[in-house]
Amino acid sequence: MTGSAVTTVPASASPTDPCLSALSETLGADLFVQDEDARAACLRDMTGNWPSGAQAVARPRSTAEVARLVKAAAAQGIAIVPQGGNTGLVGGCAVPAETPALLLSTRRLRSIRAIDLHAPAVIAEAGCILAEVQEAVAAHGFTIPLGLGSEGSATIGGLVSTNAGGIRALRHGVMRNQVLGLEVVLPDGRVWNGLRTLAKNNMGYDLKQLFIGGEGTLGVVTAAALRLVPASRQIETLWLAVEDPAAALALLGALRTALGDLVTSFELIQRRGVEWGMAAVPGLRVPDSGAHGWFVLAEVATAATGLPLRAAVESALADVFEQGLALDGMLAESEAQRRELWRIREAVVVGKAAGKPSISVDVAVPLGQVPAFLVETEAAAAGLLPGCETLGFGHLGDGNIHFSVHRGANDTERFAGTAGAIAAKVEAIALRLGGTICAEHGVGRRMRTALADALDAAELDLIRAVKRALDPHNRMNPGAVIEL
Amino acid sequence: MTGSAVTTVPASASPTDPCLSALSETLGADLFVQDEDARAACLRDMTGNWPSGAQAVARPRSTAEVARLVKAAAAQGIAIVPQGGNTGLVGGCAVPAETPALLLSTRRLRSIRAIDLHAPAVIAEAGCILAEVQEAVAAHGFTIPLGLGSEGSATIGGLVSTNAGGIRALRHGVMRNQVLGLEVVLPDGRVWNGLRTLAKNNMGYDLKQLFIGGEGTLGVVTAAALRLVPASRQIETLWLAVEDPAAALALLGALRTALGDLVTSFELIQRRGVEWGMAAVPGLRVPDSGAHGWFVLAEVATAATGLPLRAAVESALADVFEQGLALDGMLAESEAQRRELWRIREAVVVGKAAGKPSISVDVAVPLGQVPAFLVETEAAAAGLLPGCETLGFGHLGDGNIHFSVHRGANDTERFAGTAGAIAAKVEAIALRLGGTICAEHGVGRRMRTALADALDAAELDLIRAVKRALDPHNRMNPGAVIEL
Repeated sequence: MTGSAVTTVPASASPTDPCLSALSETLGADLFVQDEDARAACLRDMTGNWPSGAQAVARPRSTAEVARLVKAAAAQGIAIVPQGGNTGLVGGCAVPAETPALLLSTRRLRSIRAIDLHAPAVIAEAGCILAEVQEAVAAHGFTIPLGLGSEGSATIGGLVSTNAGGIRALRHGVMRNQVLGLEVVLPDGRVWNGLRTLAKNNMGYDLKQLFIGGEGTLGVVTAAALRLVPASRQIETLWLAVEDPAAALALLGALRTALGDLVTSFELIQRRGVEWGMAAVPGLRVPDSGAHGWFVLAEVATAATGLPLRAAVESALADVFEQGLALDGMLAESEAQRRELWRIREAVVVGKAAGKPSISVDVAVPLGQVPAFLVETEAAAAGLLPGCETLGFGHLGDGNIHFSVHRGANDTERFAGTAGAIAAKVEAIALRLGGTICAEHGVGRRMRTALADALDAAELDLIRAVKRALDPHNRMNPGAVIEL
Repeated sequence: MTGSAVTTVPASASPTDPCLSALSETLGADLFVQDEDARAACLRDMTGNWPSGAQAVARPRSTAEVARLVKAAAAQGIAIVPQGGNTGLVGGCAVPAETPALLLSTRRLRSIRAIDLHAPAVIAEAGCILAEVQEAVAAHGFTIPLGLGSEGSATIGGLVSTNAGGIRALRHGVMRNQVLGLEVVLPDGRVWNGLRTLAKNNMGYDLKQLFIGGEGTLGVVTAAALRLVPASRQIETLWLAVEDPAAALALLGALRTALGDLVTSFELIQRRGVEWGMAAVPGLRVPDSGAHGWFVLAEVATAATGLPLRAAVESALADVFEQGLALDGMLAESEAQRRELWRIREAVVVGKAAGKPSISVDVAVPLGQVPAFLVETEAAAAGLLPGCETLGFGHLGDGNIHFSVHRGANDTERFAGTAGAIAAKVEAIALRLGGTICAEHGVGRRMRTALADALDAAELDLIRAVKRALDPHNRMNPGAVIEL
């Protein structure tokens, strides 16, 4: 989480901006982070691309304190940049150095306010770490159906504000689908209590949807009511080699025909990624006969105790082998083996980062367009940077492929010169295929300009109209998502 | 669908308002409904409570025609009231007689533009009837996971605009959860093309959410991209007698433990409702030993071919009988028997309408509060109108009980005098229990004042801010949802 990035951190905890000083005096110094290391950690961007110039970091302990803070900042005309676990990849909580802004960390809003076993739902404050909330609800046999690599550091507020995705979206949807209600401190400091736990509700426009994925530009999410689902009591994990992405798609279709929506995850991994993972993570065990170009890591699960899942999966597996959709592979025989298979996927991420410099995009395309996307982007990258290596892997079940282009050998200069053009080209291909260039990492500051270029005028006007209506003075995370 | 309501329909197809006349001349008379009966059908409200005073009814044939119409109306300052299947219950497409407004029927936007078998998704225009779209996608083995009594007349546009619920929301969510993308004609006549079919997308705020459940107050939905799920290949239907609503809740929990999220519907019916249904629908066959106060109609289904559903349901059923959660009941042995069980539920609706005058509310409460809600509301109704009969039935799985209070014998006058107070009291109880007073029928004009009373100032301000931002001249369905 710390990264080795070069960041600009102001030298002193005392804000030099007179407005911020006044704010600190009004509200009390204990609302602000005094410890230099803690402050630096909040201001450091994990990608290293977005050093934050915020002069002060506030850590309120309650919704009431957030409200006081936002109200006082509004009175002084000070901008606020909310921050959760600071695990974002697009500079969503970075503050340009020239702006007298306050970084508002939600990390001390840590209470799990209620677990309703009937709804079932959990109400957790914004600063709660996902893994902690999962642990609390697991004690009652439930889970929040969201699976993320960063669950040990990502906060509920950040997950809501970025509408996080992850590896279980295929079956359960993204964060938006888990949110039943929100509590939000509005830009004028008022608290909107929308913490409902209802499956059906149409009391006016569904306001919570604006704050989900709103990246803190419309208000500060201070708590969320999230739906729970019964924890899986049976899990089957498959590792399968396939001919190509089109075969992987057909395999997904066959598994869903046999097993319905019990298919929870369906990840595609290019051989190259597995090889890089093996190089980077010693002792990694990969079921591999050495001949196939693509792998699928799939999981099938159910909370039901009354269904013989294992037998159904074995039968489905026999069918997909018989049909030639899967060429090789295995079904995990134990929880330990299941973890080993997932370690391969984690190793791909490690191997990718450990290897040659690369550029990544955060795209998704309609499911049926994934094969075309991979063919077209590989060709485009090869055209722009001969000798480069491309890697396609990720959430095939969501059409959400983490595509990256890696520098070839001895190619430092040419790579630096074309990386931006390659990313733009790949994103253009995704858009042309009906896809998105902000799939699950958000817009932040990194994607703001590209987003403005990608959307048509009517949509941009709507986004601006909403922003101006809810935050007329542009004080909530200004510069993220949209430029006014 | 026609009802016997007394409605006020203008005598002539030619609008007397000069602005409307001018509009008709500009756009061509063939865009407007000339046939008097067809026009009257659009202006008639099925509840009889909301005669529409609109002088003209336009039926554009394409999104481009809707755009022309909205633009021309905007230029003339004419308000527009969009209408789909005209099956609403809250006066959402009624126009006050004094307003020179245009009723815009989407019924000629009838094209199913695409069925994407990979996504899987369907793109259907607003005027398509739900049942027709279901038929089209069923040919490919899919379904839109929404079940409604009005599926033969409700349109896609209306379902989106009211965020319809129904009997399959327990498992699959409400209409909002089915919408992947929308095409909307904005109040200025521009077209927003948001017809995406992506599982993950965060390109700015999720604008479609405002139009879903927006009841046409922010724009005219002209087409929707809806997610599909594989059609059920195995369905098991259960009719069970239970002690009381609390036992029904425990039964739901037990079924979900055994069968996971394969439980698709879970309807609660009070004995009284079944008896009224039997009186109103001759030949209705009800499995009933005559002793129990409440019934549950539940359905468990899967698209999976590889799971032995019948055996799992039988085993679960044995368990709930052993635990005493179900007292009596049966599992449908054939498709014919399954239909018979669902006919009981339909008969309750018929019996309820055929009996003594009643008032109904559209409430939902958090699932665990359903038993308290039923106890409290029955007591409240008895207190306000001694001798009345109450009926609780509906979507227990969503906390969405259709609660009604029926006049006692020889009680016409007292009923008329207290009906409003009873409804208000029941709604107040729902709100106090953390519920909603607009669960699945929308706000329309009927619930507008009650909604304004129910929401706090911050939420009302947000709703007004959104309305003003997107429809600054208040020309889209003015008077529905919120008063500015």
